[in-house]
Amino acid sequence: MTSYIPPSKNQSPYLPFGDQRGAQFYGKDILSVNQFSRHDIEYIFGVAKEMREMVTRIGTFDLLKGKILANLFYEPSTRTSSSFTSAMERLGGSVIPINEVRYSSVSKGESLPDTVRTLECYADVIVIRHPEMGSAALAAKYASKPIINAGDGVGEHPTQALLDLFTIVSELGKVDELTITMLGDLKYGRTVHSLSRLLTLFKVKLNYVSPEILRMPPEIITELKSKGMVQAEYNTLDPVISKTDVLYVTRVQKERFENQDDYESVKGTFVITPEVMDQAKDKMIVMHPLPRVGEIAMEVDDDPRAAYFRQMESGLYVRMALLAMVLGKA
Amino acid sequence: MTSYIPPSKNQSPYLPFGDQRGAQFYGKDILSVNQFSRHDIEYIFGVAKEMREMVTRIGTFDLLKGKILANLFYEPSTRTSSSFTSAMERLGGSVIPINEVRYSSVSKGESLPDTVRTLECYADVIVIRHPEMGSAALAAKYASKPIINAGDGVGEHPTQALLDLFTIVSELGKVDELTITMLGDLKYGRTVHSLSRLLTLFKVKLNYVSPEILRMPPEIITELKSKGMVQAEYNTLDPVISKTDVLYVTRVQKERFENQDDYESVKGTFVITPEVMDQAKDKMIVMHPLPRVGEIAMEVDDDPRAAYFRQMESGLYVRMALLAMVLGKA
Amino acid sequence: MTSYIPPSKNQSPYLPFGDQRGAQFYGKDILSVNQFSRHDIEYIFGVAKEMREMVTRIGTFDLLKGKILANLFYEPSTRTSSSFTSAMERLGGSVIPINEVRYSSVSKGESLPDTVRTLECYADVIVIRHPEMGSAALAAKYASKPIINAGDGVGEHPTQALLDLFTIVSELGKVDELTITMLGDLKYGRTVHSLSRLLTLFKVKLNYVSPEILRMPPEIITELKSKGMVQAEYNTLDPVISKTDVLYVTRVQKERFENQDDYESVKGTFVITPEVMDQAKDKMIVMHPLPRVGEIAMEVDDDPRAAYFRQMESGLYVRMALLAMVLGKA
Repeated sequence: MTSYIPPSKNQSPYLPFGDQRGAQFYGKDILSVNQFSRHDIEYIFGVAKEMREMVTRIGTFDLLKGKILANLFYEPSTRTSSSFTSAMERLGGSVIPINEVRYSSVSKGESLPDTVRTLECYADVIVIRHPEMGSAALAAKYASKPIINAGDGVGEHPTQALLDLFTIVSELGKVDELTITMLGDLKYGRTVHSLSRLLTLFKVKLNYVSPEILRMPPEIITELKSKGMVQAEYNTLDPVISKTDVLYVTRVQKERFENQDDYESVKGTFVITPEVMDQAKDKMIVMHPLPRVGEIAMEVDDDPRAAYFRQMESGLYVRMALLAMVLGKA
Repeated sequence: MTSYIPPSKNQSPYLPFGDQRGAQFYGKDILSVNQFSRHDIEYIFGVAKEMREMVTRIGTFDLLKGKILANLFYEPSTRTSSSFTSAMERLGGSVIPINEVRYSSVSKGESLPDTVRTLECYADVIVIRHPEMGSAALAAKYASKPIINAGDGVGEHPTQALLDLFTIVSELGKVDELTITMLGDLKYGRTVHSLSRLLTLFKVKLNYVSPEILRMPPEIITELKSKGMVQAEYNTLDPVISKTDVLYVTRVQKERFENQDDYESVKGTFVITPEVMDQAKDKMIVMHPLPRVGEIAMEVDDDPRAAYFRQMESGLYVRMALLAMVLGKA
Repeated sequence: MTSYIPPSKNQSPYLPFGDQRGAQFYGKDILSVNQFSRHDIEYIFGVAKEMREMVTRIGTFDLLKGKILANLFYEPSTRTSSSFTSAMERLGGSVIPINEVRYSSVSKGESLPDTVRTLECYADVIVIRHPEMGSAALAAKYASKPIINAGDGVGEHPTQALLDLFTIVSELGKVDELTITMLGDLKYGRTVHSLSRLLTLFKVKLNYVSPEILRMPPEIITELKSKGMVQAEYNTLDPVISKTDVLYVTRVQKERFENQDDYESVKGTFVITPEVMDQAKDKMIVMHPLPRVGEIAMEVDDDPRAAYFRQMESGLYVRMALLAMVLGKA
């Protein structure tokens, strides 16, 4: 389902600001990084920058006043859920929070299409987080209102990939020509899969550093190679840290390991400390989708190259941009 | 408690639009279908129609700006909870969502009267869903602010009955002279009990089609008979489907059966398929309170007579109307 | 951590109403009753009174329009959570409700500092309820936005103490010269600890009435004595009820007892009945932080001296005042 590109739900878009590129997002779903062109990305980031300026200057504004977001989380994610809630509220809109799906009609056996068709009676846009791959696309197939995928299992998490990329652009001013090193759990890490796919729109070099059992899946390497991406794999950070512009660290999740000894042998191996930072460029940045549980030492937080909290903030602006766009207001 | 009619909580209503019928709802509780006259219903539906027009035209408006709804759900119901949340937000009001009652002061042993008297310090109206019959009336007895019953166990669910009836009126233009067939679990189905009671205000014919062990309770049949309702019971849909104007389908809930074999023997018997629809009138409608788990085949969804998602939407307008009315703004 | 006084987070406060006392709260944390002077209290109560007048007259107003509160509850508390939600909404602001922390990134092992630094990307002020003492101060150490402690384990609950005191002032017109009797669980009762500390700013007499195993902790008695507080301990209410101006009743929680027989022997001992009220002054008040589970008979509710529901309402105004103050709008 990752390559699903939604059909237009919009017949006659009303465009207050008359931008033709904005028009193409009105009424659309945000399901996969594969649906975006480089021009789309540039447009989204242009809107996100405006959002940042507005929030910095005046906090909130009433662009989406009267619009309602159904925030449908089948699995908990405080970070993503709060980010979308804040994005909608900073735009003057309202939120229907739905966090306890396991106790509700869904647990009575209701199908996702029925849930979505019910919610769109009450809301103008639906954000969905679901443990099963393809569920956001399934929801979009049945919904007439825009669906935004906030993570569907091992599938996609397109808004995370967009905010990651927006952080790189905001911090380093460009994406082309950068060396981006991904570290940690590259096998199960949904964020690195989505981001690496999105990066095929740009000219970058990708380094993968992971324990043997958590290597980037061969099918993704093959997919990216076919699009001309320069990629290299490593077992340690040493050979690449000094050439890295973006160090993207991920959490090695205990629950991914069947054998707990395997986890113990690996968990401390890829920790970013001030000593590691000493080997890095002055202008590089460290990113992490958070939560972290020790992959980056807290001593690194005060290093100006530690970009992970600014990365969280980027999420707000990118999600504000996407909400405004699919609701025809950007 | 089903016949409980709340005393007026309102001494000197301020009525911005000066309608005398509206006046009688200001400050009142919505507890039971038995509290409504036919004139009340007509008034509520008139306001609900206005709400639909406003939502269709401008999405939201600030009729209840500054008002706060406490959405107090002792048992989960995504659908009803979301519907009330949306209704309040579309009217410009705010919501205090209280979904985790089992973990909170209530689970520390607090009485419902104390909980309600606390919440009315913070809110202007309280919607309550509770597993015990009579609990909404109990809450209303102690609260000085309006209480809206969003389902109290096997008791009442008056806003569901009102939205069901509003759907019939919206779809077929009238209620009198219709043949309404209720199908499925008529014994435990709270919605069919409330709706059938509400229908005594109109001249309709009621057919009950259910498995033997899930027949409409004799006391309800007796109650409705005393009010002049024409009723008939069947074991299958065949004899009545072609004469039916409204087919109201309910879920046969597994949890209602002590013996799982009984459930298995019954669950597939009353499924609405395209073949069933072929026998039905061109102008009839199929309704369902949702969630469904197979009682209506998904193939039926595209049939224009399938009214169950439009029924969900009706819930929004009826609840907007009720909120505006009890807060003195309709 | 109870004496933690936060450093100023605010360098150049913008003060719309130009009050110098208001200035000192802008950008600050509310962590402990120990951070307040008597002048602070008077200022807070002045703002709270204005809030009450505004709510009474017009319901809500847009003082905090565009501001977002993250309501971060690591343990459930419907009452406190609803009160802060209502306070923010009545001021025209928005809320990010975070009630399911146990299921989210925190349960994946995220540290409180990381959670707080993430949330402040999305919100303008964070209210935190946490089971561990000192957690609110820890959060404040890392956050650059204001933190309000809504209870940290056996530590502090400063907004509760403030609303308790505000209730006394509102009901009796003063604090100095009053005799305040605290009854019930004085050992584990966080509210009586915070309130008694706050009362050291005033000239009152404190009576402690409790079962032997639930006496006020000696370290608190010593602390208050060093500040000149007049205190006395009793096993029954009889000797003091007729001289009491404020009777502050607390819940004897079953879960505090290792031995259930101890609980059973104590639970009925300190119940306020109409007979107890007969011995009390005409002008005294009965307070309780709620929930109650029998410590005050429901027959007492209609006594005009029963102030516990008005006390709940006071919480709204005090929390409105604090939110407005730390956000620089009071």
